[in-house]
Amino acid sequence: MPDIPTDAQQACFEAGIKFGSLYHQFAGTPVSPASTGSLETAMAEAIENQPHCESVSVDILDDRVADAIDHEEGYAELTGSLMEVEMRIDYEGTTVRTRMAMADGYPRMRLVAVEA
Amino acid sequence: MPDIPTDAQQACFEAGIKFGSLYHQFAGTPVSPASTGSLETAMAEAIENQPHCESVSVDILDDRVADAIDHEEGYAELTGSLMEVEMRIDYEGTTVRTRMAMADGYPRMRLVAVEA
Amino acid sequence: MPDIPTDAQQACFEAGIKFGSLYHQFAGTPVSPASTGSLETAMAEAIENQPHCESVSVDILDDRVADAIDHEEGYAELTGSLMEVEMRIDYEGTTVRTRMAMADGYPRMRLVAVEA
Amino acid sequence: MPDIPTDAQQACFEAGIKFGSLYHQFAGTPVSPASTGSLETAMAEAIENQPHCESVSVDILDDRVADAIDHEEGYAELTGSLMEVEMRIDYEGTTVRTRMAMADGYPRMRLVAVEA
Repeated sequence: MPDIPTDAQQACFEAGIKFGSLYHQFAGTPVSPASTGSLETAMAEAIENQPHCESVSVDILDDRVADAIDHEEGYAELTGSLMEVEMRIDYEGTTVRTRMAMADGYPRMRLVAVEA
Repeated sequence: MPDIPTDAQQACFEAGIKFGSLYHQFAGTPVSPASTGSLETAMAEAIENQPHCESVSVDILDDRVADAIDHEEGYAELTGSLMEVEMRIDYEGTTVRTRMAMADGYPRMRLVAVEA
Repeated sequence: MPDIPTDAQQACFEAGIKFGSLYHQFAGTPVSPASTGSLETAMAEAIENQPHCESVSVDILDDRVADAIDHEEGYAELTGSLMEVEMRIDYEGTTVRTRMAMADGYPRMRLVAVEA
Repeated sequence: MPDIPTDAQQACFEAGIKFGSLYHQFAGTPVSPASTGSLETAMAEAIENQPHCESVSVDILDDRVADAIDHEEGYAELTGSLMEVEMRIDYEGTTVRTRMAMADGYPRMRLVAVEA
């Protein structure tokens, strides 16, 4: 039978929202090695605006962006394989750490740790 | 100290990812009362493609869309106040039910129930 | 020196807006062969809401979607290489036809014809 | 009967693509007065990556963002009424200037000048 969600479950739900938001807001953004820095900062600061989001770190990998560039157009489109992301969510005393990185050739969002 | 996430916590994380994805993928889409039906179906089927997502129901509210229309342009942009969403996530035997609806004048994503 | 834009130039500007809107609104959407139909319809109807946009046709290519699927996740993310798009814009008596399709391995948005 | 597009028409089409791209890529981004600066820079640098785009200036209006904030959530979602944008496109010797600002209560994208 259904249970009232615990604070730890709520914290994990909030962590997931932030990850889905970050990914689907910014996927497709035109990016080149010259613009990774401003995009990393904007993505982190945008998602840190959301409630319970203590810190976001975005690393867009210049070498993968360079490899992904459409040379006639001169840029790549941001996608999960071009970046690594870490986030810390705090919800009513529970801290959740999450991470997105490549695994088996695909980007994966992972729940790293839940600390009560 | 950090604990290994439980299946229920993983299920809540997955539920959050789906909600953030749906919202930030489709927010801003041009919508009118004539196009709410196709957008509801596409949003539900798109997010149901994601792993562990059993069902998604999207209700874009025609009367609120009609009120939000920019009459010179002839359409509104989809935002949280124009829709209600319900989702069911299944992860390793845990079912999570979530819902987005208006509360106190703002759209809120809620974890409704976690069933082991 | 600057000239006041002609109706044909305005029509081309409007055509470009529709193409950029369609692409960046929907790029990144989770898609599988089972959901291409609903997404095609929703994309076309969404952009047809915009002013001066007479018709939009979106063809998401099932075989390319099937090839692009991340088999652990079970879906692909919509991008330009998975679809072909045609649009007709009418502005004050000028008709503009545009098309996006692959050329030299990359998706290209093209102004096909301007008819006064 | 259809004519081959002129360079000025191509330039206007390119200008429209950039405007639609900027708007629909970034609409919905969580924003607060503390994060307008990084978002303005990232939006401009992202779109400047696109071909023929010489300069983009984005001004997100802190006072309008402050008024739009959902005080329980602590942020607003970026939309056209919260920003002003200017762009310059160069295509084969034609320069196009465009601008988005509020008019009659709604944000409007305008072709300001076409200079051969």
